[in-house]
Amino acid sequence: MLASLHELRQFGSRGNGVVRPMFSEIDMRSRAWLVEQMQTAGLDAQIDGVGTVYGRSRNAGPALIIGSHSDTQPEGGWLDGAMGVMYGIEVARALRENPATADLAVDVAAWADEEGTYTSCLGSRSFCGVFPDADLGDVSAAGESVGDALKRVGLAGVSRAGIEPDRHVGYLEAHIEQGPHLEDTGKRIGVVTSIVGIRAMQVSFVGEQNHAGSTPMPRRKDAGVALFDFGVRLRERLMAIAGPTTVWTIGNARLLPGGESIIPGEAWCGVQFRDPSEAVMDDFEAAIRALADEMTTEGPVAVSAELRRNPMPPADMDPRLREHLGNAAEQRVPGEWVEMPSAAIHDANVMSEHMSAAMLFIPSIGGISHDFAEDSHETDIVTGCQILADGAASILLGTT
Amino acid sequence: MLASLHELRQFGSRGNGVVRPMFSEIDMRSRAWLVEQMQTAGLDAQIDGVGTVYGRSRNAGPALIIGSHSDTQPEGGWLDGAMGVMYGIEVARALRENPATADLAVDVAAWADEEGTYTSCLGSRSFCGVFPDADLGDVSAAGESVGDALKRVGLAGVSRAGIEPDRHVGYLEAHIEQGPHLEDTGKRIGVVTSIVGIRAMQVSFVGEQNHAGSTPMPRRKDAGVALFDFGVRLRERLMAIAGPTTVWTIGNARLLPGGESIIPGEAWCGVQFRDPSEAVMDDFEAAIRALADEMTTEGPVAVSAELRRNPMPPADMDPRLREHLGNAAEQRVPGEWVEMPSAAIHDANVMSEHMSAAMLFIPSIGGISHDFAEDSHETDIVTGCQILADGAASILLGTT
Repeated sequence: MLASLHELRQFGSRGNGVVRPMFSEIDMRSRAWLVEQMQTAGLDAQIDGVGTVYGRSRNAGPALIIGSHSDTQPEGGWLDGAMGVMYGIEVARALRENPATADLAVDVAAWADEEGTYTSCLGSRSFCGVFPDADLGDVSAAGESVGDALKRVGLAGVSRAGIEPDRHVGYLEAHIEQGPHLEDTGKRIGVVTSIVGIRAMQVSFVGEQNHAGSTPMPRRKDAGVALFDFGVRLRERLMAIAGPTTVWTIGNARLLPGGESIIPGEAWCGVQFRDPSEAVMDDFEAAIRALADEMTTEGPVAVSAELRRNPMPPADMDPRLREHLGNAAEQRVPGEWVEMPSAAIHDANVMSEHMSAAMLFIPSIGGISHDFAEDSHETDIVTGCQILADGAASILLGTT
Repeated sequence: MLASLHELRQFGSRGNGVVRPMFSEIDMRSRAWLVEQMQTAGLDAQIDGVGTVYGRSRNAGPALIIGSHSDTQPEGGWLDGAMGVMYGIEVARALRENPATADLAVDVAAWADEEGTYTSCLGSRSFCGVFPDADLGDVSAAGESVGDALKRVGLAGVSRAGIEPDRHVGYLEAHIEQGPHLEDTGKRIGVVTSIVGIRAMQVSFVGEQNHAGSTPMPRRKDAGVALFDFGVRLRERLMAIAGPTTVWTIGNARLLPGGESIIPGEAWCGVQFRDPSEAVMDDFEAAIRALADEMTTEGPVAVSAELRRNPMPPADMDPRLREHLGNAAEQRVPGEWVEMPSAAIHDANVMSEHMSAAMLFIPSIGGISHDFAEDSHETDIVTGCQILADGAASILLGTT
């Protein structure tokens, strides 16, 4: 499994990290390689009509789906979703090699575009039948739509994988924690209780572009000044209404046109926030809209906020599947595992709305993720896979 | 003159504005056209080794140089420097047509890259012998150096125009005001007393890039949060120490890597400030450095500030040339002209360090400049040129 994981890492390797965004040439090469890996593991594998690599076990159900995503952020870590994909293939291999589990059915998925280079959780949404045709028009930062990307890579018109209600009894996903909780508390495994919801708002500022020398300060309508004010004032307000685990981030912002000698006439920023509670997220959205309205009233810059597409509701993990994973963890690392929420979004959010789902975490070194520096200890990578295999076997044996 | 000015406007025309940045294909085509215009006006004209179009009168000196720049900002107005260039050509034409002034010598310049697409005031600095070879390495936002651009457009090795100390007795430049002062006070002409100095600093923020979901708020080192804080705190401090006409602008800023789900690990912004007094500018620079140091000490993000290249000192206009321009204005628009400082930088800043220099302003509608919406009333455009011609003749007749 480690050897396969390092082989996958070579596709888009950049220093310690990986650059393998969805539908890039290197991403598509890695998907062809994943098809081979799944076939070698005895699965019927192919790339489906949205780019998901799906390997279906030849065994009769009931079947578990195990997977994650193999695409990366623009500057991604090497483990992120890739580890969960290789875990799935390894579990399929391992169960097949043991006569006691050789008849169990594990289908494996490397979901397309979880990171949202084009549209987030493309693969799992399509699999669950909640990717409307309209979203084929969603575009990447480079301006290419999902539909155009599918044509470019030769997947337009190819059939899509989907849930088989009589076969699929649950979904398991393993992932690095992407946070510091396990490392900080000295635990080796996290069994996820729930996944936070996520919303993002685009905030726009419209002032008046002008010459940075000859426009006196009192006459200015500087969209950049308004952006900075907004950032500081929003932070104060959100801190006051945040729950214990709420997080929020302004990850991108721009002054336009962006010249040293030009007063910015327009500006924008993206505000993303996450919480396990819909109520807290509603409060956040209201606070952002209220501040925009207040600043517009105060002037001189007009501020508006609108929700970005595809907000993700919070998701609870299935108690029965969690129990199987917890028991498997207790066998392998007694006393060194913990139940915990996930502060990151995963394909399991989508899957959990359509079938029982559960997740397993392993520690992230320094809590660092979505960065070239992302890493985990090899012993934790191996232990996580063993527990996932044990848990999967136990679930399927219990179900049969 | 108006017809020529509208013809020049067609090079890079975009709506009401113009996109004609230095060394672009359209810029070079406009320079070839300017050579023809100058030749038709009786000048020996060519594009020199840094891109300046220089038309030398065949008359013996003493000579005035009249000009401005024909390159534009990324989203430029149609008048900006172009008007001053066409004024120069028109003055040469007009003096030539009148037997009383036909022997006077006016050399005309369309300076290269005043806007600093590659390096600010390239043409006038080269002309004055203060463009060091090292600055051939200055690069555009697109990453091309001055040296490479000169090779690309076929100017590498071409000789450069320069001051002729025995010939040149002064420099005149006309320009739109680019501010609201003339319009606000109902004046039609400004005779410039001094030009502000300008400095720019690059402020950099280094935090820690991380996952926007799984990194708890207290653990974050968000470079974007620090940037917004810096912007707001700097504004308060600078307002407290600003002189009556000081202006400052954050015209560009960036969060890196700029993903919605990534805590910015780095950020930067450019702070530009202008004042007629070096002392005020020293205070501004010190305030920016002090705030950066304080924020670094406070943590968690390291902030540093460094001066960008080529700060421009304030420049006083020549009293004798100003008097000639003022007298000419009083003849044409009695009581409707005013002495005023320039809050914008011009090639006259550079020229004034090497010879007597003076400037004339006409009103900008709404004070708007460096924007497609930039415009002036046609009657003001004509009046300005008449006064400049009268002033130039008067200076040269007085000098002879």
